[in-house]
Amino acid sequence: MRYSRIFAKTTKSAPADADSKNAELLTKGGFINKQMAGVYNYLPLGLRVLTKIQNIIREEMNALGANEVLMPTLTQEENYAISGQDAIDILFHLTGHGGSKLVINQSHENVITPLVKTYAFSYRDLPLAVYQIQNKFRNEPRAKSGLLRGREFNMKDLYSFHATETDFKKYYETVQTAYFKVYERLGLGDRVVLTYASGGVFSRYSHEFQALCEIGEDTVYLCSKCRVAVNKEIIDEHNFCPTCQNPNLTPVKAIEVGNIFDLKTRFTDAFKFKYADESGALQPILMGCYGIGVSRLMGTLVEIFNDDKGIIWPRSVAPYALHLVAVGSDEAVLREAEQLYQQLLGSKIEVLYDDRSNASAGEKFADADLLGLPLRVVISKRTLEKGVAEFKERSASEAELIPLQNVRHEIDQRCR
Amino acid sequence: MRYSRIFAKTTKSAPADADSKNAELLTKGGFINKQMAGVYNYLPLGLRVLTKIQNIIREEMNALGANEVLMPTLTQEENYAISGQDAIDILFHLTGHGGSKLVINQSHENVITPLVKTYAFSYRDLPLAVYQIQNKFRNEPRAKSGLLRGREFNMKDLYSFHATETDFKKYYETVQTAYFKVYERLGLGDRVVLTYASGGVFSRYSHEFQALCEIGEDTVYLCSKCRVAVNKEIIDEHNFCPTCQNPNLTPVKAIEVGNIFDLKTRFTDAFKFKYADESGALQPILMGCYGIGVSRLMGTLVEIFNDDKGIIWPRSVAPYALHLVAVGSDEAVLREAEQLYQQLLGSKIEVLYDDRSNASAGEKFADADLLGLPLRVVISKRTLEKGVAEFKERSASEAELIPLQNVRHEIDQRCR
Repeated sequence: MRYSRIFAKTTKSAPADADSKNAELLTKGGFINKQMAGVYNYLPLGLRVLTKIQNIIREEMNALGANEVLMPTLTQEENYAISGQDAIDILFHLTGHGGSKLVINQSHENVITPLVKTYAFSYRDLPLAVYQIQNKFRNEPRAKSGLLRGREFNMKDLYSFHATETDFKKYYETVQTAYFKVYERLGLGDRVVLTYASGGVFSRYSHEFQALCEIGEDTVYLCSKCRVAVNKEIIDEHNFCPTCQNPNLTPVKAIEVGNIFDLKTRFTDAFKFKYADESGALQPILMGCYGIGVSRLMGTLVEIFNDDKGIIWPRSVAPYALHLVAVGSDEAVLREAEQLYQQLLGSKIEVLYDDRSNASAGEKFADADLLGLPLRVVISKRTLEKGVAEFKERSASEAELIPLQNVRHEIDQRCR
Repeated sequence: MRYSRIFAKTTKSAPADADSKNAELLTKGGFINKQMAGVYNYLPLGLRVLTKIQNIIREEMNALGANEVLMPTLTQEENYAISGQDAIDILFHLTGHGGSKLVINQSHENVITPLVKTYAFSYRDLPLAVYQIQNKFRNEPRAKSGLLRGREFNMKDLYSFHATETDFKKYYETVQTAYFKVYERLGLGDRVVLTYASGGVFSRYSHEFQALCEIGEDTVYLCSKCRVAVNKEIIDEHNFCPTCQNPNLTPVKAIEVGNIFDLKTRFTDAFKFKYADESGALQPILMGCYGIGVSRLMGTLVEIFNDDKGIIWPRSVAPYALHLVAVGSDEAVLREAEQLYQQLLGSKIEVLYDDRSNASAGEKFADADLLGLPLRVVISKRTLEKGVAEFKERSASEAELIPLQNVRHEIDQRCR
C-alpha cells in the first residue's frame, strides 16, 4: 500500500484527552479515531491490526473444533429476563416500533443458549462448542484508557455445552491451552498468567488471563514459583498459590485479556435446555463460556510494546511487515524504490511504501518509528551511491546496510 | 468440514412465520436462525456465505482504491442533529450513563464526514474514498421477507469526497462499473439493471441497482431496449428511458441490491468540511455515497436461485464447493469417502463431507439438494462395485458416473 493513498495519516500531537499510551500512540499513528468516550473508529492501519488479531484467534478456535457463527447485536429484553439478567447495570436498553423492549448485547449467553437448544436434543449432539467474533456494548460509566475499557468493543466469545462434568473439565483445560497459544502468537507468551478469580454464585473459581503490565488497572497476586496468580477479589480468602500452595504471592499490575467461566447449569436451566440420554431421560446440560477481548488486546499490545518513538508491533499483527521509505525526490531513488515496491507486491510481501513527495526524510523516519512496522527499508541518494539499502528492525537500535543485490533475499528471509 | 460436526443441521419444516422463500430455505438449511422480526443469527454455513459475499465486494472496493475502515455502531445523537437527521423515523435512540443521548447508526454519513475532516484539508488530499462493511440498524415497523428487509442487517457503505463536479461524476461512473462487477461475480450479471430514482432535494437522480425477481417488493419500469429502468417514485414525471428516450417501459418486480447517491454538499456543508485550494481559499467538498446490502444480497440469491428441492448457490458464494456424501455404513465405502475427504482437504478444495451414521441415503440426498452446493459426489456400495463415484451438479437434472481414478481430476476441474 502506498502511504500517500491512506487517507488517515499520522498527526503531530495526540488529543488532549488521550489518557493512556495506547490511546495516544494509536491516535497519533492514525490507527484509531475516537468517536466518543469508549467508542472508536478503526482507520485503515488499525483495522488491519484488529483483523490480524481476529484471524489468529479464529484459527485457534477452529483448531478446537468450535463452529463459528455470528449472533445479532439487537435482542429482545425478555431473553435477559429469562436468565434474570435484564437489570444488569451496563446493559443498554432501547425501544422498538410498537413499544417492543430491546437491548444491545453486552454478552451472548442469553442468545446462544436458546439458539443451540433449537438444534441439540440428544447425548449424540454433545459436546458442542460455538463461537463468534462480534462487537459488545456496555453502558460503561467509566470508559477510559483507549481500547482498554470501552463502551463498544470487539470480542471473541466461545460457548461450550456438555453432558458430563468430566467432559466439561477436559474442554475447559483444552481452551486454556488454546488461549495460551493465542497469546504466544501475539508475542505475549511470557507476559500472560493464568489467574484464579471468583466463580460467582455457581462455581468456586473462574479464570482470568492477565497480561502483566505496569499500567494495568487490575492487581493480581503472582506466585514466585509458578506462572499462576490470584486476583484481588479472592486474595483475602485464598492467599497462597492454587497450584503449588506457595504463600509467597507478589502484587503486580496487569490487564485482563481473557476470562473463562464454568457456568454450570446457570443458563441451560433458565432456558430449559436439556438433552435426552441413551434411555431417553432428560438431563441437565453443563455450559462454559470463554472470552477474549480483541480490541482490548490491540490496546494491550501497544501498552507493552512501545518506546519513546512509537509502537513496536509484534510481526504477527503488524499492519504491514515492511515499511519502505524513499528519501528525497531524486529520480534514481524513486525508480529503485518503485521497482522494489512492485517486486514485493508481486511476491505477496505486505509492504507499506512511504511514497509521499511532500514529507521530509525526518518526517518519514519519525512516522516509521511511530507506526512501528517490524522492518524499515530506506532507499536514498546516499544509499544508492554506496550500492546499498538501509535496513532497520524497529526493535533494534542500529541500522544495517544491505547490498542492493541482496535486498530481495533479505526481505524474503525477514518478512515471511 | 464434516457435517456431523456442524451443530446447526437442516430442519424438516420451516417456521410457520417464514414469509418468503429465502427465510424458508435458509432456515430449513441451517444457514440462519431468526432472533426476532428482522434480526437473524448467522449459523456456520450461513456465515460462510455472508463472508464470501463480503469478500467479493471488498475486493472490488479495494480495486477502486478505496480505504477500508470500521466505524462504530454507537454514535452521539448530536452528530445526527448537525445534519438535521436526528428525527429520522427509523433511527434507534438510547441513553447512556449520565443521560447522554446516543443512537445506533442506520447509515454512517454523520460519522464519516467529521472523521474524514480530521485528516483531509487540502486539494492534495482529494479525491478520497472510504468504505466499511458493517451492520446497520433500522427501527423498521415492517421487517419482513427474511434477509430482504431487516432491522439489523449487513451493508457495505462507501463514501467519496471530491473537489470538482467533473471528478465526482467520473468516480460515480467508476463505482457503477465496480457494482456491476460485484453482481456479475455473484451470478446476478444478467439480472441487475441500473434504475433511475429520485435524487431527493439536492440532486436530480440517484441510482438503484435492481435485481429483477418476481417476489421483489419494488416495481421498476424497464426499457425494452436498454438494461436501464426508472423507479416508481419518478415514473410519472419521467416515463421514458433516460438512456435511449424509448417510451416503451414495462413494469417488472425487483429487489433493490444497491444504491448510489450524489450527496453534493449536503453533509460536508453541515459539518463545515471544506478544502483549501492552491491559493489557500476554502472551497466546498462534493460527496457521494454508495451502498450494497450484503445480507439482503444473500437473501436475493436464494430468491432467484432455487428449485422445489432447495437452494442452488452460485459457485462464488457457496459455503463449500463440493458436497461429499457417503451412503450406508459399508466399511469400504467409508474408507473410500474418508480417503477422498482427506485428499481434498490436503489440496484445499472446500468440501462438506456428510459423514453422518444416523442419516439415511434419502435424508442425505434431500439435505444436499436443500443446502445447494454446486457439486454433489456420492460414494456408495453400488458405485464402488462399478468402480465409480456419482457426480451431480446441483443445477443439472442428471447425474454422471465418474471412474474412481478420474475423481480427483474431475473435482479439480470443477471446484477450483
